[in-house]
Amino acid sequence: MAIRTLNAKTAGELDAELMDSGGFSLDQLMELAGLSVSQAVYKLHPPSKGDRVLVACGPGNNGGDGLVAARHLHHFGYTPTIYYPKQGKAELYKRLVTQLQSLDVKFAEDFHSALKNTDYLVDAIFGFSFSGEVREPFPSVIKALRDTKIPVLSVDAPSSWHIEIGPPEEGPGQGFQPEALISLTAPKPLVKHFKGRHFLGGRFLSKQMAQKYSLDIPPYPGCDQIVEVDVQGQKL
Amino acid sequence: MAIRTLNAKTAGELDAELMDSGGFSLDQLMELAGLSVSQAVYKLHPPSKGDRVLVACGPGNNGGDGLVAARHLHHFGYTPTIYYPKQGKAELYKRLVTQLQSLDVKFAEDFHSALKNTDYLVDAIFGFSFSGEVREPFPSVIKALRDTKIPVLSVDAPSSWHIEIGPPEEGPGQGFQPEALISLTAPKPLVKHFKGRHFLGGRFLSKQMAQKYSLDIPPYPGCDQIVEVDVQGQKL
Repeated sequence: MAIRTLNAKTAGELDAELMDSGGFSLDQLMELAGLSVSQAVYKLHPPSKGDRVLVACGPGNNGGDGLVAARHLHHFGYTPTIYYPKQGKAELYKRLVTQLQSLDVKFAEDFHSALKNTDYLVDAIFGFSFSGEVREPFPSVIKALRDTKIPVLSVDAPSSWHIEIGPPEEGPGQGFQPEALISLTAPKPLVKHFKGRHFLGGRFLSKQMAQKYSLDIPPYPGCDQIVEVDVQGQKL
Repeated sequence: MAIRTLNAKTAGELDAELMDSGGFSLDQLMELAGLSVSQAVYKLHPPSKGDRVLVACGPGNNGGDGLVAARHLHHFGYTPTIYYPKQGKAELYKRLVTQLQSLDVKFAEDFHSALKNTDYLVDAIFGFSFSGEVREPFPSVIKALRDTKIPVLSVDAPSSWHIEIGPPEEGPGQGFQPEALISLTAPKPLVKHFKGRHFLGGRFLSKQMAQKYSLDIPPYPGCDQIVEVDVQGQKL
């Protein structure tokens, strides 16, 4: 039995339901999502393998997850650097930046220079609400993520992939296959085109919500915030 | 070198600073605090030893930490029950209750009946802002926590203990020594009178803040949100 996926529309509806009748704030959901991203980094690439992590953040909630993850990575003993060229205007994003500044986490102006000094990459540019066009300055960043030999963990979607259709047939993301993907709450349909290691994160869904959205969430181990699954969504 | 402690006043100042210039919301801090409480429960008493956990919550932020912990305990495979007789009026507390209700977590009307059907206890009644008198209906609850053979984990302080002075010389908490204590952010001065297993939680303090408040925080292992320390605050 394969895990069922959330398309862009239902993923948005599920988040809205969690924050409406579910009682969650975006602060809480993003904290748990970002923490799960940081735990996936720890599992894939512990600090002993190189502690420099470059986190590329987009302007929306995917970027916010990246900012939270970077804060936790700092506390786990990494040296994160943030690339955040289009900073989200919501108050929460500003506070996440303040938190990182309090930890003396560096913000890089130029992605390509920062890429020369990193051991690991987190792609938190676009998430499930992405559609259409990759706007400046992200085309060259996505090309670099595609072409680098440094391993990349993508958050919820390899950036520039269409959430339902998967990898783009042209443009900067053509041929982009990150080493790893963490799907938040549940995988998106694009997962069937993904060939790397796959994690689930976001351990906060009730059984009722999972049923309502026809999701088949595998059990998470112990008190982890992540579970590794195959590309069919089965627990490994 | 012993860990330095935070008295009630400086603990309040530190929290205020985290939320003011530090950029944190109470939602975020409470999420991480509650998660660390749930991880301590997991370490002390994994679900295989008995999955029923009764979480006694007070009306303030200590109770809020307990509510967050209970939600995570549910996801870790426990069956938590909440005793929350004086529900905090802040919107956050109401949302935490909604989250638990969405998971079908039970709220007990009577602590003493609930105590008959539990394997583990979390004392989240009073935290660092407690002073003075134990008001109804908590005196008999604290007496029961003192007298039961079921193990108790206290959050930040054994409830009814004076934050600086420690165990009360009279009243319901006289002689109360929980099996375990999790100190949030840093131990409080009462810790020198505590004889059980001791954890630190709340992995979000910058080195600068730790220095400013003269705290000597030991390193947390891996990506854990808790670290076990001795009563002098040294890592075990």
